[in-house]
Amino acid sequence: MQAVWLENGKLSLREVPVLEPAPGEARVRVLQAGICNTDLELVAGYYPYTGVLGHEFVGHVERGPSELLGQRVVGEINAACGICATCKRDLTKHCENRTVLGIVGRDGAFAPTLALPVANLHPVAEAISDDEATFTEPLAAALQIQHQTAIGAGRRVLVVGTGKLGQLIARTFALTGCELQALGRRQSSLDLLAAHGIDVLTADSLQERAYDVAVECTGNAAGFELARRALRPRGTLVMKSTYAGGLTLDASAVVVDELQLIGSRCGPFARALEVLAGKRLKVEDLIEARYPLADAPAAFEHASRPGALKVLLEVS
Amino acid sequence: MQAVWLENGKLSLREVPVLEPAPGEARVRVLQAGICNTDLELVAGYYPYTGVLGHEFVGHVERGPSELLGQRVVGEINAACGICATCKRDLTKHCENRTVLGIVGRDGAFAPTLALPVANLHPVAEAISDDEATFTEPLAAALQIQHQTAIGAGRRVLVVGTGKLGQLIARTFALTGCELQALGRRQSSLDLLAAHGIDVLTADSLQERAYDVAVECTGNAAGFELARRALRPRGTLVMKSTYAGGLTLDASAVVVDELQLIGSRCGPFARALEVLAGKRLKVEDLIEARYPLADAPAAFEHASRPGALKVLLEVS
Repeated sequence: MQAVWLENGKLSLREVPVLEPAPGEARVRVLQAGICNTDLELVAGYYPYTGVLGHEFVGHVERGPSELLGQRVVGEINAACGICATCKRDLTKHCENRTVLGIVGRDGAFAPTLALPVANLHPVAEAISDDEATFTEPLAAALQIQHQTAIGAGRRVLVVGTGKLGQLIARTFALTGCELQALGRRQSSLDLLAAHGIDVLTADSLQERAYDVAVECTGNAAGFELARRALRPRGTLVMKSTYAGGLTLDASAVVVDELQLIGSRCGPFARALEVLAGKRLKVEDLIEARYPLADAPAAFEHASRPGALKVLLEVS
Repeated sequence: MQAVWLENGKLSLREVPVLEPAPGEARVRVLQAGICNTDLELVAGYYPYTGVLGHEFVGHVERGPSELLGQRVVGEINAACGICATCKRDLTKHCENRTVLGIVGRDGAFAPTLALPVANLHPVAEAISDDEATFTEPLAAALQIQHQTAIGAGRRVLVVGTGKLGQLIARTFALTGCELQALGRRQSSLDLLAAHGIDVLTADSLQERAYDVAVECTGNAAGFELARRALRPRGTLVMKSTYAGGLTLDASAVVVDELQLIGSRCGPFARALEVLAGKRLKVEDLIEARYPLADAPAAFEHASRPGALKVLLEVS
């Protein structure tokens, strides 16, 4: 089958064998998949991965336990060993021996089929469209923040960065009743959030030392600095982006203001599916373009344009 | 009176007027005072302060409310306005308009007398010696960590840095029943902790990804990196040092491992005095030298030697 292959930072379409799922795994026929910033960073060499890219997908189980066969599913991306000390602490998303779909040691979703442990798969309710389901993984990542720090009534919260992930984070926060603002540079992204009733601003009108929580999802040092300066003493800075290379920050200010910085990665699929099924949050307006799998190079070029929102690959 | 004056990074002995305490303040005759790394950093230009240095002290109240007159006291260093939004949140140590004894806008303890708000002063129990009392401020800063993250039985904890502050932090942690280790470079500092029954190690025998909590008190990027690498996923890194200039860190690792970083500064004096009065913790072995106030330049030279422990200034 034809798949989107990454090797030495070079993207290509390549013929790969259809996987025979390992014991405890299922094979999924991919319907469509989304290009994420992590995919772009992998291509840019942020992490040395060789294999099929892609980790945001919806598909149908075509091989696996009978109760799952034919079901429409999405899948958690971290495949855990289940036996290491980290797994035994119920931190399976952090398993020291994990493979990660399309990111670490496991071929991904930019291919007609993929394999994942059965435990990673979540059936998708009928009420959820394929487009919506494709957002389950990043939506879960956005919701993870609420498992790590209090977001809700009486809390003043700033989202720094209004790209793909910032859009989802701001939209999930808007459901909590917090005093929310989103800070971005691109007018079109700000307009998109404003259309959802979210208060938006640019850096020049930021009120410093005023927010209880600031979420950094720009992935650059300037965004981090804005988030830090936005926080009141003892505020919480959620780090939601990975960074190419080292991040230089004013650590003394973190100490003097007793700030709390929290790294945040993958999140709860079950909750994301609930939010989607309940139609509590719209995601379709984030889809900017669709390309067939065979046009993956053009799709990647599109996804890497500044300010690009979600680009989907239609697989089957 | 003669005081230790800092101006444009230059330390000198200078004649300054005895302060008339402002309403709500008391004047304290200083017995002795300790030189802290913050003092050394102020001299090095870490923060642009002009005035009398010194913030770790014990003294007697010589002017103030009658119930305090003649009492032996120590004093919290942050003088709050009481009316700003931060004070109204009961975060007076973070008051946006604060002065800080010997650090920001308030003449400090390396002088025969100082002035502080009455609310900042804590009487010292008879059981506590002058030497012990002089450690109240840094001991409170060490105890602050336990107000910010759980340290206790079943928690594996690493203190990175065995200088003056690391010594106090490790000793306070040893009282909690946590699985404690302290990592340092200097054999004499490690021996001092080992004499208190604390398990010590050097960087080459560090077990990575193993600790629940790591406290960084080296103030340099290499120490921060050791603390980060020591942590298991979702571990907590307490930042207890200020840093000259920016700190460059592997922020992606913080995100991927969902680490929590917590800045930690001043702490609870009442608790520090309890610990000292209860003789639960020894501090006298941290005193390396004593100088009369008039020999402050020599005392600062001594305090800035690599590995120097506490240098005291005898004031009156």
